[in-house]
Amino acid sequence: MTAIVNTTAADEAAGRPAVTVLGLGQMGAAIAGALLAAGHPVTVWNRTAEKAAPLVEKGAVLAGSVAEAVAASPLVLAVVLDYPALYGILDPASAELKGKALVNLVSGSPEQADEAVEWAARHGLNYLDGAIMTTPPGVGTREVMFLYSGDQAVFDAHHTALDVLGEPLYLGAEPGLAALYDVNLLGLMWATMSGWLHGTAVATAEGTRAVDFTEVAIRWLGTVGNFIRRYAAQVDEGAYPGDDATVDVQIATIEHQLHAARARGVDNRLPELLKTLMVEANAKGHGQDSFGSVIEVLRQGAR
Amino acid sequence: MTAIVNTTAADEAAGRPAVTVLGLGQMGAAIAGALLAAGHPVTVWNRTAEKAAPLVEKGAVLAGSVAEAVAASPLVLAVVLDYPALYGILDPASAELKGKALVNLVSGSPEQADEAVEWAARHGLNYLDGAIMTTPPGVGTREVMFLYSGDQAVFDAHHTALDVLGEPLYLGAEPGLAALYDVNLLGLMWATMSGWLHGTAVATAEGTRAVDFTEVAIRWLGTVGNFIRRYAAQVDEGAYPGDDATVDVQIATIEHQLHAARARGVDNRLPELLKTLMVEANAKGHGQDSFGSVIEVLRQGAR
Repeated sequence: MTAIVNTTAADEAAGRPAVTVLGLGQMGAAIAGALLAAGHPVTVWNRTAEKAAPLVEKGAVLAGSVAEAVAASPLVLAVVLDYPALYGILDPASAELKGKALVNLVSGSPEQADEAVEWAARHGLNYLDGAIMTTPPGVGTREVMFLYSGDQAVFDAHHTALDVLGEPLYLGAEPGLAALYDVNLLGLMWATMSGWLHGTAVATAEGTRAVDFTEVAIRWLGTVGNFIRRYAAQVDEGAYPGDDATVDVQIATIEHQLHAARARGVDNRLPELLKTLMVEANAKGHGQDSFGSVIEVLRQGAR
Repeated sequence: MTAIVNTTAADEAAGRPAVTVLGLGQMGAAIAGALLAAGHPVTVWNRTAEKAAPLVEKGAVLAGSVAEAVAASPLVLAVVLDYPALYGILDPASAELKGKALVNLVSGSPEQADEAVEWAARHGLNYLDGAIMTTPPGVGTREVMFLYSGDQAVFDAHHTALDVLGEPLYLGAEPGLAALYDVNLLGLMWATMSGWLHGTAVATAEGTRAVDFTEVAIRWLGTVGNFIRRYAAQVDEGAYPGDDATVDVQIATIEHQLHAARARGVDNRLPELLKTLMVEANAKGHGQDSFGSVIEVLRQGAR
């Protein structure tokens, strides 16, 4: 990955705006580091101050308290462990919060984001919810996405700083959207990585290298992306024409996968479940429909 | 998608080699059509001859028998339903098979491909196994992959024709490799598409359009590709350093997804299973390792 430093002549003339980063775990440190590298004045705070040392060496200011940290910049990025930590840290600094912009990068559920909006309103904060779609090494590169939702004025006013972290995508005014996308994109990740690991376990059982299978798998994910783009439109239509490949054909084909994995001693719980979902789609009358119709099984109710 | 016709001046001077296509289901018809469009003389055969009419209109020759079809071209592409159909069709044409190149595009297991090699040897056929990594609409575009394994001389000699169908990847001399990759790439597809549908079911429960979530999801699959490239190297090493994200962090994070889906009435069997696999990885001592370590759970034996 290539680090992108978005410093333009105009930015330098204007001076890049000051940013405060609360929380210096791996992610917070990566974010503060990227902002420093891009030329922003950065104030940091962490529960254990020692973690700030490498950033202070690069020019960050270590605040003596949360109140001091918040007072230092118009924009505050919160990268702490969870919501209780967020409230625990910021409630005592209530006086300094009024009128500040808070971008909340804490991971959580959409419901937690909605609660945070009410909490922010009580403190007079301008609140933008965010989700970091990368691990720390990806921060500061244009390849990764940062998702935002909530107060668009915050997003627009602080675009220069947000731009440094990754590609910023504003999803809408509903504050829970970033968290909603986040949890569901992570769900897609776990499903994809588990399916990939299952295939890798089978492919490597007889001497194929994981990296060889994986390069083809990554290429293949591009084709799968085309399939899901087609099925997404079907989901919005509520109709799933199976003119490219039907659920019944997939049910027949998955037997080859189950067989190959079984013959190589690989755990088949994942493909067995995926087959079950397709068989249930067939039972609901979608045998001649596309794989997109499996959403009707998933929507039939929580278990 | 853009149709790519690889016709060069040299190809036209030399004349493109003749190809026979056996089986005119949706996929066989798409393949024959792509070859015709690229300027290859194409002979076709299908159990029900009527299916050949649209291709004959475009210049294909309809053979009166399998033997006649095989005799017409040095290269024979088989795109029939399954292995019994393949043998049933070609065994009676045994006399004409000797010395021909057969590219077998029938879907099946690696074991079936291995058996086909022995069968091909008995008939004096030069045998290349292939797997079509697209639905019929993608045939003839450079975006899609066709995987091949087996006799490299066949792959090299008939590259011009194979090039027309999609990007040809030769995996190695082991004939079962194309089928092995095929079933495992399809497994990756079902896992990815199911994870995407689960996320789409949750995201669309409150008015987000599937196409909006999906464009971000497709962008995200690129990031996921970077994760699996990193973990693939770990799998080959047999060591899974969790320096970017640990199994334990993922186990904690998946609760947000389960919660958001449950609150919206979406079936959680898939994420529950993915969580179980991670919890089992933790139990095997991989809590502080990367997600790549989940392969050790999958390898622990078929169920």
